[in-house]
Amino acid sequence: MVILLKKNPEKSQLENLIKWLESRNIEIHYSEGRTRTILGLVGDTSLVDIDLLLALDIVEDVKRITEPYKNANRQFHPEDLVIDIQGVKVGGGHFLMIAGPCSIESQEQLLEVAESVKKSGANMLRGGAFKPRTSPYAFQGLREQGLKILLDVKKAVDIPVVTEIMDISQLPLFEEVDVIQVGARNMQNFELLKELGRMPKPVLLKRGLSATLQELLMSAEYIMSGGNENVILCERGIRTFETATRNTLDLSAVPMLKELSHLPVIVDPSHATGISKLVKPMALAAVACGADGLIIEVHNDPAHALCDGPQSLTPRAFDELNQNIQQILPYAY
Amino acid sequence: MVILLKKNPEKSQLENLIKWLESRNIEIHYSEGRTRTILGLVGDTSLVDIDLLLALDIVEDVKRITEPYKNANRQFHPEDLVIDIQGVKVGGGHFLMIAGPCSIESQEQLLEVAESVKKSGANMLRGGAFKPRTSPYAFQGLREQGLKILLDVKKAVDIPVVTEIMDISQLPLFEEVDVIQVGARNMQNFELLKELGRMPKPVLLKRGLSATLQELLMSAEYIMSGGNENVILCERGIRTFETATRNTLDLSAVPMLKELSHLPVIVDPSHATGISKLVKPMALAAVACGADGLIIEVHNDPAHALCDGPQSLTPRAFDELNQNIQQILPYAY
Amino acid sequence: MVILLKKNPEKSQLENLIKWLESRNIEIHYSEGRTRTILGLVGDTSLVDIDLLLALDIVEDVKRITEPYKNANRQFHPEDLVIDIQGVKVGGGHFLMIAGPCSIESQEQLLEVAESVKKSGANMLRGGAFKPRTSPYAFQGLREQGLKILLDVKKAVDIPVVTEIMDISQLPLFEEVDVIQVGARNMQNFELLKELGRMPKPVLLKRGLSATLQELLMSAEYIMSGGNENVILCERGIRTFETATRNTLDLSAVPMLKELSHLPVIVDPSHATGISKLVKPMALAAVACGADGLIIEVHNDPAHALCDGPQSLTPRAFDELNQNIQQILPYAY
Amino acid sequence: MVILLKKNPEKSQLENLIKWLESRNIEIHYSEGRTRTILGLVGDTSLVDIDLLLALDIVEDVKRITEPYKNANRQFHPEDLVIDIQGVKVGGGHFLMIAGPCSIESQEQLLEVAESVKKSGANMLRGGAFKPRTSPYAFQGLREQGLKILLDVKKAVDIPVVTEIMDISQLPLFEEVDVIQVGARNMQNFELLKELGRMPKPVLLKRGLSATLQELLMSAEYIMSGGNENVILCERGIRTFETATRNTLDLSAVPMLKELSHLPVIVDPSHATGISKLVKPMALAAVACGADGLIIEVHNDPAHALCDGPQSLTPRAFDELNQNIQQILPYAY
Repeated sequence: MVILLKKNPEKSQLENLIKWLESRNIEIHYSEGRTRTILGLVGDTSLVDIDLLLALDIVEDVKRITEPYKNANRQFHPEDLVIDIQGVKVGGGHFLMIAGPCSIESQEQLLEVAESVKKSGANMLRGGAFKPRTSPYAFQGLREQGLKILLDVKKAVDIPVVTEIMDISQLPLFEEVDVIQVGARNMQNFELLKELGRMPKPVLLKRGLSATLQELLMSAEYIMSGGNENVILCERGIRTFETATRNTLDLSAVPMLKELSHLPVIVDPSHATGISKLVKPMALAAVACGADGLIIEVHNDPAHALCDGPQSLTPRAFDELNQNIQQILPYAY
Repeated sequence: MVILLKKNPEKSQLENLIKWLESRNIEIHYSEGRTRTILGLVGDTSLVDIDLLLALDIVEDVKRITEPYKNANRQFHPEDLVIDIQGVKVGGGHFLMIAGPCSIESQEQLLEVAESVKKSGANMLRGGAFKPRTSPYAFQGLREQGLKILLDVKKAVDIPVVTEIMDISQLPLFEEVDVIQVGARNMQNFELLKELGRMPKPVLLKRGLSATLQELLMSAEYIMSGGNENVILCERGIRTFETATRNTLDLSAVPMLKELSHLPVIVDPSHATGISKLVKPMALAAVACGADGLIIEVHNDPAHALCDGPQSLTPRAFDELNQNIQQILPYAY
Repeated sequence: MVILLKKNPEKSQLENLIKWLESRNIEIHYSEGRTRTILGLVGDTSLVDIDLLLALDIVEDVKRITEPYKNANRQFHPEDLVIDIQGVKVGGGHFLMIAGPCSIESQEQLLEVAESVKKSGANMLRGGAFKPRTSPYAFQGLREQGLKILLDVKKAVDIPVVTEIMDISQLPLFEEVDVIQVGARNMQNFELLKELGRMPKPVLLKRGLSATLQELLMSAEYIMSGGNENVILCERGIRTFETATRNTLDLSAVPMLKELSHLPVIVDPSHATGISKLVKPMALAAVACGADGLIIEVHNDPAHALCDGPQSLTPRAFDELNQNIQQILPYAY
Repeated sequence: MVILLKKNPEKSQLENLIKWLESRNIEIHYSEGRTRTILGLVGDTSLVDIDLLLALDIVEDVKRITEPYKNANRQFHPEDLVIDIQGVKVGGGHFLMIAGPCSIESQEQLLEVAESVKKSGANMLRGGAFKPRTSPYAFQGLREQGLKILLDVKKAVDIPVVTEIMDISQLPLFEEVDVIQVGARNMQNFELLKELGRMPKPVLLKRGLSATLQELLMSAEYIMSGGNENVILCERGIRTFETATRNTLDLSAVPMLKELSHLPVIVDPSHATGISKLVKPMALAAVACGADGLIIEVHNDPAHALCDGPQSLTPRAFDELNQNIQQILPYAY
């Protein structure tokens, strides 16, 4: 961290600042120039509140040089994290293939999709019970009933499951869910993140629509600083000016996140593009640049899905996709 | 709403679609061209799920022409909504001036600021008890204790108060709060919005960092469709590529929202810019383009604010700002 | 400028770097910590190519602390620049009101508009002869003929004129034009900027659709470093995810640019919003936050304008706007 | 194209509009509802100026349903376009691998890189002579001298070359250049595009930093409508709020552009990310999602490149990348 002081900083204030920093075990490199004075801070600056410094009269600007996250930082965890979900592994070379419908509509629907995607190679089932929808008039999911169906199908097909939570109050219902998903709109629901940090259950943390990679890692840090280290990061498209696709899938996030952090990184090409024809090419691209897994929407009757239909694959298309992925995986980054 | 059909749509599917729409009291204008067929839908299409239509085999594209919100729509509510908050009014020509510190730090601090801003002309007090912070290591607010201070100062100074809620579970603590603020990161916390729709208390709804105006209005619709019509919209800056300011204050949102909706619209220049020097010019600009109010950060010791200090005004600067606003108000749009 | 070195930098390379910097009259503050070494550079670093430094093996990161522009920098030019255009002044308290049609369509049209806007208080006439249009099939302007009409009307009405150049080869035609406009799409047409830097004629430089304020100032620096100091900056909306308005008018750019630079800053609310109803509120807002001028589209028959009609004002609406601006100007920031 | 009329449109104006459209061979589907009237337009609407319609008193809104480009539209050109560049083909299954330094620095440098990349499998050489740089103080390229070196090396190594043009006036120097590159900042330099449309030489058209895919295709249309059909599209990253990478590489643009157009689409991972470590994973991802080629920066001494060094690969890294690409190509989308 580098602090640029204003011209002629008030002496006693400067001394106070230096003492305060030293009391936090931070080494200070004082460097006085003709016009400006710079303080170089060395040590664990992840605990320093940058806004506090900026608020001081004598400070003109502050620049971080090391990242403000520690638990999620690869620098302190050089080895890839491998998360074990009921025997299914992700990270460190283990590829996680999550598939299933956007919304759970009925026991029959989910069972059919689950059996089909498992056969095609999926090792985790997804299915939405609580659905975050922009409009209060759109289908909001089967909720408790949907969750019950999901857990029934989990047992019947013997496959771990992931589903989205929308509020802390729903937590008791998630006991048998294997991975809890935090959706893009809740990436900075800090109360929820803190609560999830107190459990041992793996969390699938989706990147917010306008979240920087650093903010995504800070949200992971919220969970991890509570004691729960099992966080899977998920790139699912960001909001830009482009309107041809629903969002812009930021695939450079994959190698970049893996550079910055030891956490597994997976990709959701279905929500990112919103167009079923683009799911296959973007899934292959995600694999090629080193993603640790994918989360794909599959529907047995995409033309009648209750929500997000246009982006779903048929079970057959999913099967073909899976074969193609197996061909590329050995040569991926 | 206009539905563009694919070439040579399957007849029975088309008939089913038309029957389904007509059962919803929607008039259909069928128009067959050389290469394409168009269905024009007339009626209350706000309840039609656009994704459902897009998912049909025979549909190529769907375009909305009327807005998908009704309760928040000026077309159905031509008169400006005036909200009465313990005698303080906002909307329809009534200007709301909210001021106070970003975070509540102590009874002394809040009392001093409250008395000062009330004297300068503020008619509502703000102060954060629960603080959404990007980093788990940053100051998270005084929480319950902060709320208690706020309510004490409210009585002592006799001024209505607004403060931010971060989770449904905090609701019981907000009983005596006059206006509940939903922060930018919670604009699409739909479970929270539904809950707030069941109460009569006014809600200050901040625009999400990457929310479109339509999404903001859809979130208002979540609250209003539950029965609570007292929603105040707040523009507070959006996320763009520009880094000179913290966010980009989108002031065209003010006249645009007032065109689309009858709800009051206020502006937060402090958070949008993140720079105290920009608060005054942007506050004046907001007034000039027709904002129904402002929410301004004021701190008695900005240089030592526990959070967001760089964007706070001193009580003296706030007093000057207020005088300047009074001069511009009569000539505002 | 601060250089963060990699761990254990190679000694001879470090010595070379230091020598090279010192040869450019740059003072170096060397600061070695437990894990990292920082070089603080003090002096005129505007001439240092940041990419060159980043390319060095021993360098991990480089952060600028002072701005990379000098001619356009208020730090070196504390007084507002006042530009004199045939007796009409802009900057330093002088307000420039430019008005006229988007495209020049005929002598009759331009003459009528020019006389009308001059009467209403405009002190400069705009009119497009060369039109940058997204589609090759859209009207491209009257070109040479349009320029001729503009210069005829200039004489007839006795008002200075501004019009857009699209390519260096058109320069000879602009001799009698008072201010040359560089459009948003050409803001980084560096060959054109260099050429304009060799002339004494004032340049109206529009901000690119995705240009940062720093990039806008660097483009001004291109012109100014060639010797032409008469640059007027123009905010005209940036590209964001929001689709309710054509672009997002970034009004905080006005006080921010005036903080960073001594150049006059004007605002174009017509192109930014693309909606005639929004022109008035955004023009008033621009004035309130300190803009040195406005450029407004006015058309005698907006419903039949050959291009960009929806954003034009009628002469009558412009007259009303002008009166309203005069009321706000005395109280503006 | 669908025109939504205002309520109770004036009859004679409506008749005029209908006559005008019919005179352009456009079929009209008139559909009157309880509250609104819709005109469905069928025929070649690519020549209809949408702004002209929007400007009419009786029109409320206009929505395009077919794309406004024709020459670049796959609907009219179902087969992939294959462009032949001195025997090297791109498109329709032919993969184009362009490599070379960002800037041409000397004959020795370029010759060494050219021989090396050709040996590794590149079939076209790139090298910048005219360099668009944000700062007037940064290295601007060797210009005419650089172009001479490029053409010398082209002959010596027997490899086709591509290099960037920055202004029409430079065209005479480009006679022996095989492919002319239009940079991101010039994507909407319409005068330049028109000029290039009059030549038979292939053009490599880079997407602008904030250009939509439709705008990119409209710029291709500018060139193609002049008679030159040999346009190669290039995705090179767009500007978003994310700062971890220089730009955000929008890989969904690849399958989307290939859906919309028959033109070849290549990807520039070097400029998009600005980080050499990310070049390989993003190059592999581009290949996996169906790109017709790549343009990669290679430098024999990346640590001392005169510009954009941080994003260059060494010849050795390029060789490895090429081998990896050959492994993925057979399984790409």
